[in-house]
Amino acid sequence: MNAPHLPLPGDARIERLAIVGVGLIGGSLAAALREAGRVDTVVGIGRSQATLDEAIRLGLIDHGFTDAATGVRGADMVVLAMPVGQTGRMLATIAPGVGPRTIVTDAGSTKSDVVAAAREHFAAHMRQFVPAHPIAGDEKSGPSAARANLYRGRNVVTTPLAETDAAAVARVEAMWRSAGAVIHRMTPQQHDDVFATVSHLPHLLAYALVAQVALDPDHERLFSYAASGFRDFTRIAGSHPEMWRDIALANREALLNRLDGYTAQVAQLRAALVTGDGAALERTFALAKDARAEWLRRTGQG
Amino acid sequence: MNAPHLPLPGDARIERLAIVGVGLIGGSLAAALREAGRVDTVVGIGRSQATLDEAIRLGLIDHGFTDAATGVRGADMVVLAMPVGQTGRMLATIAPGVGPRTIVTDAGSTKSDVVAAAREHFAAHMRQFVPAHPIAGDEKSGPSAARANLYRGRNVVTTPLAETDAAAVARVEAMWRSAGAVIHRMTPQQHDDVFATVSHLPHLLAYALVAQVALDPDHERLFSYAASGFRDFTRIAGSHPEMWRDIALANREALLNRLDGYTAQVAQLRAALVTGDGAALERTFALAKDARAEWLRRTGQG
Repeated sequence: MNAPHLPLPGDARIERLAIVGVGLIGGSLAAALREAGRVDTVVGIGRSQATLDEAIRLGLIDHGFTDAATGVRGADMVVLAMPVGQTGRMLATIAPGVGPRTIVTDAGSTKSDVVAAAREHFAAHMRQFVPAHPIAGDEKSGPSAARANLYRGRNVVTTPLAETDAAAVARVEAMWRSAGAVIHRMTPQQHDDVFATVSHLPHLLAYALVAQVALDPDHERLFSYAASGFRDFTRIAGSHPEMWRDIALANREALLNRLDGYTAQVAQLRAALVTGDGAALERTFALAKDARAEWLRRTGQG
Repeated sequence: MNAPHLPLPGDARIERLAIVGVGLIGGSLAAALREAGRVDTVVGIGRSQATLDEAIRLGLIDHGFTDAATGVRGADMVVLAMPVGQTGRMLATIAPGVGPRTIVTDAGSTKSDVVAAAREHFAAHMRQFVPAHPIAGDEKSGPSAARANLYRGRNVVTTPLAETDAAAVARVEAMWRSAGAVIHRMTPQQHDDVFATVSHLPHLLAYALVAQVALDPDHERLFSYAASGFRDFTRIAGSHPEMWRDIALANREALLNRLDGYTAQVAQLRAALVTGDGAALERTFALAKDARAEWLRRTGQG
């Protein structure tokens, strides 16, 4: 476990930071690094001039560019903070502007697909590319939602590859530590499996239950008896459909694997129900209840 | 929809109420009817003399009996408020003490199994038996948790049968209205299907997900990245394992039916994932999100 706010090596200072997508994620990183005095110049890259102007007005960035290849020129650090599905195209776009000392990292919530996109569109620069995922978010979005403390005490996962330059990884991790984050390293596959299990799968399952009720001819009666248990179980089915479509597709392999494991677990419970095996049902229910209580205790939630 | 606090017919007054199981559910009903001035004498029946003494001390009941057949003698209304799995045995026990004017009702959270138990153990008295389910609860239990306002504005489902005496149904519904509840009538099958869908199935699904994570060799890492979405989705997996074992078994048929419908819904999402059909995923996610938002709006939660 890495403590935040470690003294940084001298080269952790960023001279020119280019943020592609100045919303909550990118804007908050810029704000945090400015507050920590770890960056000289921040450049924002986005499709909308109005958003870039707003980010300048808010003091998040110094300059804005709608042309990404131009925007990244001269940057020693480039952070991709736009929707993960655009990663391949954006890497291809910025490749001509990337110099030999430029480090490129991302903030995508899936990693195997980002690595595949990089291998396809950024092959000449793989040494300089550090896949990463800051685990933070907020209900709000856009530059006005950005805040310097978004990453304080939050986890950032880096998934360096065999070909990734060690110094580039150290620079990216130092940057996130400057923003207050705690760094964890995994392989892209480990990362994707973890989030398939504890986030992407529950989203899919919650969407499926609400869809089942909504598509039932008796849906009005069914909904009228739904109470707080149903409300909490399905809270994540209130999430953004396009975003979760993209995440599900981007993490398809890991999600299918975990979904099949889940289906097998449910099939065991079904078999116990069919045979009236109350002991088996109770064993699984108790195992789950105890494991969850232990998790809440360990994480200070229970 | 029935408004609470309707003026009651004169015969809604209960002369001698016998409550089997003086805990949260039975004790709160006694307290509410006393407060409304709708009952003359309340008799409590329980296995523990200490609990009965406590209920007398709390003013919930006037007399306590550990022998159920003796306890129900002379009662015009008997309410079964002990665990639903004991219904058949309890009906057999009290049958000798039940007179021709005695009405018997229950508070079990499943209904088809209660009706089956009644047909088996209470066959001679089916006219007098009114299956019912008050939808109310609390974290706490026991007589000390009982409170007169537990049922105010809450739903009570009655599931009268073809052979149930209409006057008996009216008496039971008037009793619950006196406690502040809103009455809904369904068939036992409708009732069980509704609660299988919005309550029992989500419990089973939440238990299954936590069990899947807990049984994984990588469970420590997986749990360490679980966040608020996982916590809310699995909140009901913190529920009492024995109680949910009993509910799952008691409502087995409806639960299996809804579980299979759910599995089919999940299989559709799986197929869309496999073929990369983003439009199908998004359609289902958006349908769920919109239906949930509409439900929250209608119920004043959103």
